[in-house]
Amino acid sequence: MITGQHYIGGRWQGQPQADACSFNPALNQPLRWAFAEAGSMELQQVTELAESAALPYRLTSCEQRAAFLEHIADNIEALGELLIETVMAESALPKARVEGERGRTCNQLRLFARLLRSPEDEVHEPAEPDRQPLPKPELRLRTVALGPVVVFGASNFPLAFSVAGGDTASALAAGCPVIVKAHNAHPATSELVARAIAQAVEQCRMPVGIFALVQARAHAFSEQLIQHPSIKAVAFTGSGQVGMHFQRLIWQRKEPIPFYGELGSQNPLCVLPAYLQQHTEAFAGQLFNSVVMGQGQFCTRPGLVFVLKDSSTESLKIALQRLCNEHAAAAMLTAKIAASYRRQTALLAETEGVSLVAEGQGEEEGCVTKARIFCTNARTFVEQPLLREEVFGPATLLIECSDVTELQMLLTTLAGQLTATLYASEGEQQLVRSLLQALEQKAGRVIVGQMPTGVEVCASMNHGGPFPASSDSRYTAVGSRAIQRFVRPVCYQNVPAWYFDQQASQ
Amino acid sequence: MITGQHYIGGRWQGQPQADACSFNPALNQPLRWAFAEAGSMELQQVTELAESAALPYRLTSCEQRAAFLEHIADNIEALGELLIETVMAESALPKARVEGERGRTCNQLRLFARLLRSPEDEVHEPAEPDRQPLPKPELRLRTVALGPVVVFGASNFPLAFSVAGGDTASALAAGCPVIVKAHNAHPATSELVARAIAQAVEQCRMPVGIFALVQARAHAFSEQLIQHPSIKAVAFTGSGQVGMHFQRLIWQRKEPIPFYGELGSQNPLCVLPAYLQQHTEAFAGQLFNSVVMGQGQFCTRPGLVFVLKDSSTESLKIALQRLCNEHAAAAMLTAKIAASYRRQTALLAETEGVSLVAEGQGEEEGCVTKARIFCTNARTFVEQPLLREEVFGPATLLIECSDVTELQMLLTTLAGQLTATLYASEGEQQLVRSLLQALEQKAGRVIVGQMPTGVEVCASMNHGGPFPASSDSRYTAVGSRAIQRFVRPVCYQNVPAWYFDQQASQ
Repeated sequence: MITGQHYIGGRWQGQPQADACSFNPALNQPLRWAFAEAGSMELQQVTELAESAALPYRLTSCEQRAAFLEHIADNIEALGELLIETVMAESALPKARVEGERGRTCNQLRLFARLLRSPEDEVHEPAEPDRQPLPKPELRLRTVALGPVVVFGASNFPLAFSVAGGDTASALAAGCPVIVKAHNAHPATSELVARAIAQAVEQCRMPVGIFALVQARAHAFSEQLIQHPSIKAVAFTGSGQVGMHFQRLIWQRKEPIPFYGELGSQNPLCVLPAYLQQHTEAFAGQLFNSVVMGQGQFCTRPGLVFVLKDSSTESLKIALQRLCNEHAAAAMLTAKIAASYRRQTALLAETEGVSLVAEGQGEEEGCVTKARIFCTNARTFVEQPLLREEVFGPATLLIECSDVTELQMLLTTLAGQLTATLYASEGEQQLVRSLLQALEQKAGRVIVGQMPTGVEVCASMNHGGPFPASSDSRYTAVGSRAIQRFVRPVCYQNVPAWYFDQQASQ
Repeated sequence: MITGQHYIGGRWQGQPQADACSFNPALNQPLRWAFAEAGSMELQQVTELAESAALPYRLTSCEQRAAFLEHIADNIEALGELLIETVMAESALPKARVEGERGRTCNQLRLFARLLRSPEDEVHEPAEPDRQPLPKPELRLRTVALGPVVVFGASNFPLAFSVAGGDTASALAAGCPVIVKAHNAHPATSELVARAIAQAVEQCRMPVGIFALVQARAHAFSEQLIQHPSIKAVAFTGSGQVGMHFQRLIWQRKEPIPFYGELGSQNPLCVLPAYLQQHTEAFAGQLFNSVVMGQGQFCTRPGLVFVLKDSSTESLKIALQRLCNEHAAAAMLTAKIAASYRRQTALLAETEGVSLVAEGQGEEEGCVTKARIFCTNARTFVEQPLLREEVFGPATLLIECSDVTELQMLLTTLAGQLTATLYASEGEQQLVRSLLQALEQKAGRVIVGQMPTGVEVCASMNHGGPFPASSDSRYTAVGSRAIQRFVRPVCYQNVPAWYFDQQASQ
């Protein structure tokens, strides 16, 4: 079933290359599937096709696009166990997680379908021809699609933030053609999901240029793609380093375009003594579970835990130690991610002022890593820039502050974050208020008494945050408002009503 | 009354420099007012004050900010004739226009006050603790202010897009401190309006750091200001050249921030033969009036008029010729703008394939310029890049197309525009549809049968457009949605309701 080809212009094409194989991280060995490598010919094809599909696709009705998204969801579900097994083979993620993620992916597609069918919030102001001193014209505010969008999927969400994930779903809902660069960590998964979209393109008789999947390991292809004049927006989930490299390339374009990069976060969490004293065991359990869930490969994993040093922090460390020591080593998504995790945690362990509180069970090799809990003090946190870097994996760092003033000072030094969390007991209202006011300045989502992992896909979600958590804090990557990334407003003045009969905003 | 000083931290300060005087373009001579020049000390002061005012101002209630905006409007009106005369002296704009612009300025401030008082569109989703397979947390989507904003006012709107203009009003409404760099063409007007704001700061007991006015002729001050880490957004109205220079400086920052540049537009207008034949005289009158209004110094002035060559285009030219020949030369805003207009129109007149149809009456010298109507053909329009440059002033260019196909081809070659306009008769529905679909791809506002000059300030307005008309086509500079430029979303998960009692979104 896996051909290793690109999907361009309604056809599968390209010659798989024997040295470009998919990889099984759990077995630490290559899979049997080989993949093609896109070059300048594919670049020209996908951009020309997307550009010529942009107008007809923009002019499809909301109902047509809603039906198209639903067909994609149905077709993904119809892939059945083949898809689940392929994701598991390429990602080492457990079955329940992969099934859950497939559910989320299809739900996202159907969420945007419902959004397209719900009454739009067009603003329409009637003319006031007799107004003094000047008549008021008839005005109608709507949105139009930006044009072709490039999507780079995330390694850690092979379904929900990849080929038919949140970026693709929201861009297609907005009326934009989408070109997906398959993630190198799950090319076979990408191909299967692209087949589900390709089938929906046929079923709904959509212009073939509205979707393409390209396999490309060379960076040059991605770099040229995002600088191509036909491209009108780019969505990216990945490291800050790659993200900012892409951002700078986009700034070199003649025409600036929006770049939506979700670039990583440490997700600070503060727990106040009164709460911690009452709930030490339960809190330790929730925290540890949130840190190691999916082998720590969630962008919302709590990586910094601020505590006020007292007897309860010792109890917390002991509880975390016990949990961590029992936790078995496990495979991460790729060997590169695992190596990076081992390198970063080794550096942390060597840093003066940082101590390793606990470590998981088992041996680390290939893609396999162990959980690690570190501890430090406020002074070291201020002085060591290393502690401001996201560690992608099952690790967290406790920061012991001597008092509330020190905690508040540390919070002001934080960079932008996706989430910020506070655990406090009910009697601490004044302190909670001032801490929340500090945290909301730093994060896109502020949480009280719940762990930040687990991102609800709905209208009130915001997934994004001040730089460097994301490249554009004004937009969310998750939830129905994600569609706003791919449209711009147009005001229609005195335009006859019949012009809007067939179309709808969004 | 005019001291020539900066307003920083609630005080007027700085030493006026004898060589930095205001200028009267109508009389072509300096005014008596001299102005101070901001340097590194002022830079440090305004940024520190704005940064420290950001949190307390963000936490003011919507009602407090609404009252503050209304006080500014009242205080501007209380300046009375002094303000009107000062604007007239510095801009050469006629009294009726200046009075109208003062009305618009105060209306804008009151529009944002009403917006702050109207029920907010917060999205609140209650918890669903029993949902399967996972409970749904309580979520609330709100907005928070970005932080200190720098505003560069427009030469052509000394009140409505300057010190207390649309950018300042929307940023203050959003809860952001504002630093205004006074426009060199109207420093005395700027000082008077800053006095109105300063008085409102006192009346409403606002933190003094929320507003500053700095006088600075050296570019270095502006360049350093927009690169300062405390600044979180920049609003600019002016030339594409200066705007993109600022944009590139902002891209060099360590932390990227939004840049809202309104950079100029040619505002294409198409008139179809059936309409033109029936309404030649009326259309010529409306068009000419729109071109020369305010001596052509509106960003929405129609600078390109596409016609299909037939007998009606000859009648149009004759009608425009008559109107233009009778039109008296008049002073522009500055000698630099006038010189630039004369240079650009001289180049157009010399360009092969371009003919000068008509010219206004009188002599051009100093700040004074004459209206000019040019005509060209489709081929010249395609081949001469000069014809794609905005001519800021009382000029327009007719482009004669041989048929509809040629017209449609030309429209696809246009760059992004603030507005695009179509005049057609009722029987041409199919052609109108296809032309509007082409025009909405190129512009932020699409108009049928009305001139593009005159921008309604309301909820359904969009003033902005695809690059290079503006630097960020997703936002409007005019109307109530302009506030969205200065906030970012925050999702509050499981945050107790009492936290939101005092505050309100926006």
